Amino acid sequence: MKITCSQAELVKGVNIVTKAVPTRTTMPILQCILIDASANQIKLMANDMEIGIETIIDGRIEERGIIALDASIFSNIVKKLPDSQVVITTGESFQANISCEKANFNINGMDGENFAYLPVIPRNEPVVISEFTLKEVIRQTIFSIADNENNKLMAGELFEIHGSRMRVVSLDGHRISIRNIELKSECPDYKVVVPGKTLNEISKIIPGSYEENVMIYITENHIIFEFGQTTVVSRLIDGEYFKIEQMLSSDYETKIRISKRELLECIDRATLLVNPGDKKPIIMNVTDGNMELNIQSFIGSMNENIAIDKEGRDILIGFNPKFFIDALRNIDDEEITIYMVNPKAPCFIKDDDNKFLYLILPVNFNAA
Amino acid sequence: MKITCSQAELVKGVNIVTKAVPTRTTMPILQCILIDASANQIKLMANDMEIGIETIIDGRIEERGIIALDASIFSNIVKKLPDSQVVITTGESFQANISCEKANFNINGMDGENFAYLPVIPRNEPVVISEFTLKEVIRQTIFSIADNENNKLMAGELFEIHGSRMRVVSLDGHRISIRNIELKSECPDYKVVVPGKTLNEISKIIPGSYEENVMIYITENHIIFEFGQTTVVSRLIDGEYFKIEQMLSSDYETKIRISKRELLECIDRATLLVNPGDKKPIIMNVTDGNMELNIQSFIGSMNENIAIDKEGRDILIGFNPKFFIDALRNIDDEEITIYMVNPKAPCFIKDDDNKFLYLILPVNFNAA
Repeated sequence: MKITCSQAELVKGVNIVTKAVPTRTTMPILQCILIDASANQIKLMANDMEIGIETIIDGRIEERGIIALDASIFSNIVKKLPDSQVVITTGESFQANISCEKANFNINGMDGENFAYLPVIPRNEPVVISEFTLKEVIRQTIFSIADNENNKLMAGELFEIHGSRMRVVSLDGHRISIRNIELKSECPDYKVVVPGKTLNEISKIIPGSYEENVMIYITENHIIFEFGQTTVVSRLIDGEYFKIEQMLSSDYETKIRISKRELLECIDRATLLVNPGDKKPIIMNVTDGNMELNIQSFIGSMNENIAIDKEGRDILIGFNPKFFIDALRNIDDEEITIYMVNPKAPCFIKDDDNKFLYLILPVNFNAA
Repeated sequence: MKITCSQAELVKGVNIVTKAVPTRTTMPILQCILIDASANQIKLMANDMEIGIETIIDGRIEERGIIALDASIFSNIVKKLPDSQVVITTGESFQANISCEKANFNINGMDGENFAYLPVIPRNEPVVISEFTLKEVIRQTIFSIADNENNKLMAGELFEIHGSRMRVVSLDGHRISIRNIELKSECPDYKVVVPGKTLNEISKIIPGSYEENVMIYITENHIIFEFGQTTVVSRLIDGEYFKIEQMLSSDYETKIRISKRELLECIDRATLLVNPGDKKPIIMNVTDGNMELNIQSFIGSMNENIAIDKEGRDILIGFNPKFFIDALRNIDDEEITIYMVNPKAPCFIKDDDNKFLYLILPVNFNAA
């Protein structure tokens, strides 16, 4: 094999595919990046058997071939090369030579034939969504998945498509995050659970443009994301997702309009007094026009007042401050609306357009 | 005690003094920042018994007093407060109230009377040096101190003053770094060893201006740095520093002029093939007009050529690449001169003005 491409193009490709290189594995070949120049394109590929990524880079093939190179060594070398043309040549027994200007590296590769290629999956009609929207949707929901050994479904997100609407849901037993998106066209109905790890990696490699689209293909066991020159194939999580409809009541006793920034900064300050691990609630005392926030811990106490618009009853209610911080950090609106029922029922943060909904369970506290 | 000052001023002061708060100690009072408003200035202070820092912040004293507050809690709170006026009040049993706009914190403090005040040290004539120069001198020498349990002197830097010249030296048994500075005025002779930790912290808190000066006062056991509103007092390291004069021969057999950037980037790339721990040398093959660099390891091999100006004999010599990288990163010149004698004698990187000198010992290698 002999290929030539620019250092920048190589770095871009390597950065994309390394997201699918496992950190630990017993199979050395999985820790490699495959360079596949066996046809008339240069493809980089990595695959940890859960998620596989393939990307095409610009370059010239002078001699066709394939080679698997240790991902960490190869990416370190590529990143430190001068910003110039890079020539990669393979020799006997999978030796690879990487040269760029006057620098010349020789490293040992592995037989590309042993590489675990991505599964070939038949493609139906795609779900089309802009890179920007997919990236936003992931950011706004991924924080409330749970790494729960007992329930694999919590480690994923529900992607539910019905007509031209897509709903993305994540939950961890204490909270639920929902994002609704209007698709550009009608699609067949789907209801699948996508691994959180896949979504995390995807959101890192999608450029996030408004104009460019991601094509999502869904099959029984796999989901494929295609964007630019890149294809990501991931397994789906097996099983029936949680029934959340009965929790999403729209009744409320108290409705609050509040500045997101003020509330977030206040709760953020309050958590200074809480050691990670001890579960001290932040207590909200909601009265006409005012929310008093209060936290008490072994370190000390804090209280602060925020002006609000309130409809309905006064309420005294406690929350895990982290859950509020996570939701507030991911809402882009300046003013938010919070709906509460009673100190033991979940509260909702949602917008009028039904784009997002965050449900947070309150915690018990002694209202001394 | 009751004081008022701006949040920004408080953050600035806290960031300075926390450098002297020990990470671990059996004395809880040492983990505090002392706020001393007992006279007509607000002083912040911290002291780990090796290094003590005191800084004066702008503010208004409404009621005199002192209080010691846990450094980590206090600094976290102060940093998260709104950018506004902060009022700190102390109550019974060393309770402190910190309020800013509508936020209100209550935390437990400690009796400021138990705080370890900085030692009172008589001040002679100071050594005067610009903030910029002191910061540069530390950066350019600190990397070659050693954390050697058996030899405390290696953990410090020699500050040697003679007439209007100051020489700063650090060494670790494999290399020596020297910086010479011309002082603005003559000073008495001094020869003291300053702890590396002190210099590290100092270089973080000196603003580094060309125009502002640092006053350095030296006594038998202490060194004091005064700049702006800040005073740093540090113990000195006891003992007679190493005799380095006999190592600084100016004879050479080979003299090389080379681009610093090219050499640095090449050695930097070469180290990609070296796992931390295995000591693979970088081998320099110096011939007329050319330096060929070569490294071989279990991972692979690299070679690269750099154009040079050479006087004297050809030489084949090996070095620990890290030592070269450290020195080259801290030299600001674009072209450097390297002097070599033979493959077993130290090499020197030095400038014509005698501002800096880096001595590096070569390592053995098999010139197969």
